Amino acid sequence: MITTDILIIGAGPTGLFTVFEAGLLKLKCHLIDALPQAGGQCSEIYPKKPIYDIPAYPEILAGDLTDKLLEQCKQFKPGFTLGERAETIEKQEDGTFIVTTNKGTKHQALVVAIAGGLGSFEPRKPLIHNIAEFEDLGVEYIIKDPEVYRDKKVVIAGGGDSALDWSIFLSDVASEVTLIHRRSEFRGHLDSVEKVQELKNQGKINLVTPAEVIGIVGDEKVKAVVVKQAQHIEKEFEIDCDHFIPLFGLSPKLGPIGDWGLEIEKNAIKVDNALDYQTNIPGVFAIGDVNTYPGKLKLILCGFHEATLMCQAAYKIINPGKRYVLKYTTVAGVDGFDGTRKEAPKAVVKTID
Amino acid sequence: MITTDILIIGAGPTGLFTVFEAGLLKLKCHLIDALPQAGGQCSEIYPKKPIYDIPAYPEILAGDLTDKLLEQCKQFKPGFTLGERAETIEKQEDGTFIVTTNKGTKHQALVVAIAGGLGSFEPRKPLIHNIAEFEDLGVEYIIKDPEVYRDKKVVIAGGGDSALDWSIFLSDVASEVTLIHRRSEFRGHLDSVEKVQELKNQGKINLVTPAEVIGIVGDEKVKAVVVKQAQHIEKEFEIDCDHFIPLFGLSPKLGPIGDWGLEIEKNAIKVDNALDYQTNIPGVFAIGDVNTYPGKLKLILCGFHEATLMCQAAYKIINPGKRYVLKYTTVAGVDGFDGTRKEAPKAVVKTID
Ligand SMILES: Cc1cc2nc3c(=O)[nH]c(=O)nc-3n(C[C@H](O)[C@H](O)[C@H](O)COP(=O)(O)OP(=O)(O)OC[C@H]3O[C@@H](n4cnc5c(N)ncnc54)[C@H](O)[C@@H]3O)c2cc1C
Ligand SMILES: Cc1cc2nc3c(=O)[nH]c(=O)nc-3n(C[C@H](O)[C@H](O)[C@H](O)COP(=O)(O)OP(=O)(O)OC[C@H]3O[C@@H](n4cnc5c(N)ncnc54)[C@H](O)[C@@H]3O)c2cc1C
Repeated sequence: MITTDILIIGAGPTGLFTVFEAGLLKLKCHLIDALPQAGGQCSEIYPKKPIYDIPAYPEILAGDLTDKLLEQCKQFKPGFTLGERAETIEKQEDGTFIVTTNKGTKHQALVVAIAGGLGSFEPRKPLIHNIAEFEDLGVEYIIKDPEVYRDKKVVIAGGGDSALDWSIFLSDVASEVTLIHRRSEFRGHLDSVEKVQELKNQGKINLVTPAEVIGIVGDEKVKAVVVKQAQHIEKEFEIDCDHFIPLFGLSPKLGPIGDWGLEIEKNAIKVDNALDYQTNIPGVFAIGDVNTYPGKLKLILCGFHEATLMCQAAYKIINPGKRYVLKYTTVAGVDGFDGTRKEAPKAVVKTID
Repeated sequence: MITTDILIIGAGPTGLFTVFEAGLLKLKCHLIDALPQAGGQCSEIYPKKPIYDIPAYPEILAGDLTDKLLEQCKQFKPGFTLGERAETIEKQEDGTFIVTTNKGTKHQALVVAIAGGLGSFEPRKPLIHNIAEFEDLGVEYIIKDPEVYRDKKVVIAGGGDSALDWSIFLSDVASEVTLIHRRSEFRGHLDSVEKVQELKNQGKINLVTPAEVIGIVGDEKVKAVVVKQAQHIEKEFEIDCDHFIPLFGLSPKLGPIGDWGLEIEKNAIKVDNALDYQTNIPGVFAIGDVNTYPGKLKLILCGFHEATLMCQAAYKIINPGKRYVLKYTTVAGVDGFDGTRKEAPKAVVKTID
């Protein structure tokens, strides 16, 4: 059982900034995310694109925003359960909640902050009749740890940035990379498309287009994929491989959280925006893109504010009766849970003679 | 008469970010501030100190924050009335407001956003019997344009960062700089104190301590100050000068805004935080440190969120009946009023063969 002060569901920008604000109040956080990495939509959908409306950043790449948020909160040592989806919530007699993931990991906290954005990112799966049999037995929809593919034969399917970028990356790791796409045109950053062309010319990536994987061969584990190619005349053939990785994008689904007894409106969780972004279940808050209230804007900067106010309410639940006096970080400094301290250089009082 | 879409009172971080958010909605802004420069508390009180809780900035100097906010909003060409205090507000029959400053400058807008922080920054004035006679005739409490002092004889009074830093700066501009302080100890950044010591040793700054200015001599304009020095034996003498600049700090006063018929609570303006941060006067909003509501935190990041939601409400007032669909800056880009356009590099669709 993982125990913490505030259990955060969703490690997007809102969840990450919550760790920082909670830390200022000496509250510990643990984050659960279905994705293998932090950053939410910013790291999953548009890491290389600029955002222009983060206050005081005339321009920042979404991936860099994630890095900055991770750097800002790391002194408060957040725990992470990544690659798992929060599935159920149960209120205990002692007032704590237990949240269990699809892999059975249990987390306990007095306060739950749902920062689930548009929902848990779930892969779009290709329609291949026997694919389910091979999930986690050679078929992966998300690359969690590239080392798994070292010196292995890998088939990647897809025609967007993910498929392009992972083909490039794995061409240096795997013993063989085959990229299959149902068209000859790829859609992505210019430099990614050009790099794949170059690696193909060098023989480091096998390209099979226009083609589709229509079946998987194996027993217990993936041994090959069946490919149908449709150039000039249709032909079917097998490609030997240890791993088949269809990268057709991830789409967010509110998913199990929808069944937690929370008031839902327009696929989002209703909260009390006049006070603390609490849901209809006391102790459960919803912040960032996942919540709704009159005038709600699904913007990153709004999640930051909501997280900050929510932490104050969490403080009161976790420290009943204790008074908290807001201190400016500039004045009081920041004491990390890792023993670090940040503080402004003090003014000196010094004689000039 | 200056006319604009949103008239912003206060050019602190909240006011500056309002310009940006309004610009995204194609609304023009004009700002009034009692200070000669933008930045509010950040630039007036602690420009060289680090802030640690600006989201995605693990550390940023308050002065740099101001610069970044100015850079971010400059494409929307805000107008500025600086060094003037907003004094009165009048609602016109056509629904617009006219706001007049202490210097008589008039501004007209359909929406007024009060981002006045802790109030208008007003100088702490020394108790010198005839000082009022010489205000703006050689006595200045705030340095607006250092060029005014070129080749002039200047006497500065004060013992903090402002007095130290302006003495350093003007030692290169004025023909003579005298720094007077009632103690021999100065309180400020170590490097400022050391620099003044160095300039004093080089004869570039005259230092008179412990001493006080007790009178001003002149007719029409300042000609000299009367100084009482209290080392060993008390003595009084005159120092010839063209300017006397007492820098004893500025303190914020809610001031005239308190009489505008707004609901005030704890020296702040009550707003509807459940919707759009509007005050009890329709069309007048209050955002940032100047407002209050249940759970309010006087933090910079909260002002950013409040400004953003407020601009949506302003849009509806200024464009009645027109529907606005939120577009992400990443997706739609940003079109400046100065003809510039920022946009994310587009994905390409390209054949690999
Ligand atoms: C193309 C694009 C451009 C954008 N441009 C801008 C812009 O310019 N400015 C701006 O402000 N915003 C922009 N946005 C929106 C911005 O990305 C979101 O507002 C922001 O990501 C919301 O942050 P969040 O932390 O609330 O949620 P998210 O970033 O959505 O993160 C939520 C996380 O929660 C996880 N999760 C959800 N449910 C579960 C569960 N049950 N178990 C485990 N994990 C779960 C998800 O996997 C996800 O990682 C853009 C979005 C897109 C797609
Ligand atoms: C030492 C110190 C450290 C701080 N540290 C932090 C920190 O670490 N994190 C954080 O989030 N916050 C911090 N703060 C608070 C932060 O500076 C404020 O929250 C922020 O400045 C508020 O911004 P604002 O734009 O709402 O108001 P302000 O910055 O106060 O600006 C308001 C402006 O309005 C002007 N004004 C008011 N009335 C009138 C009028 N009638 N006519 C003309 N002009 C008028 C004023 O002159 C002023 O320039 C700190 C403050 C101080 C003093």
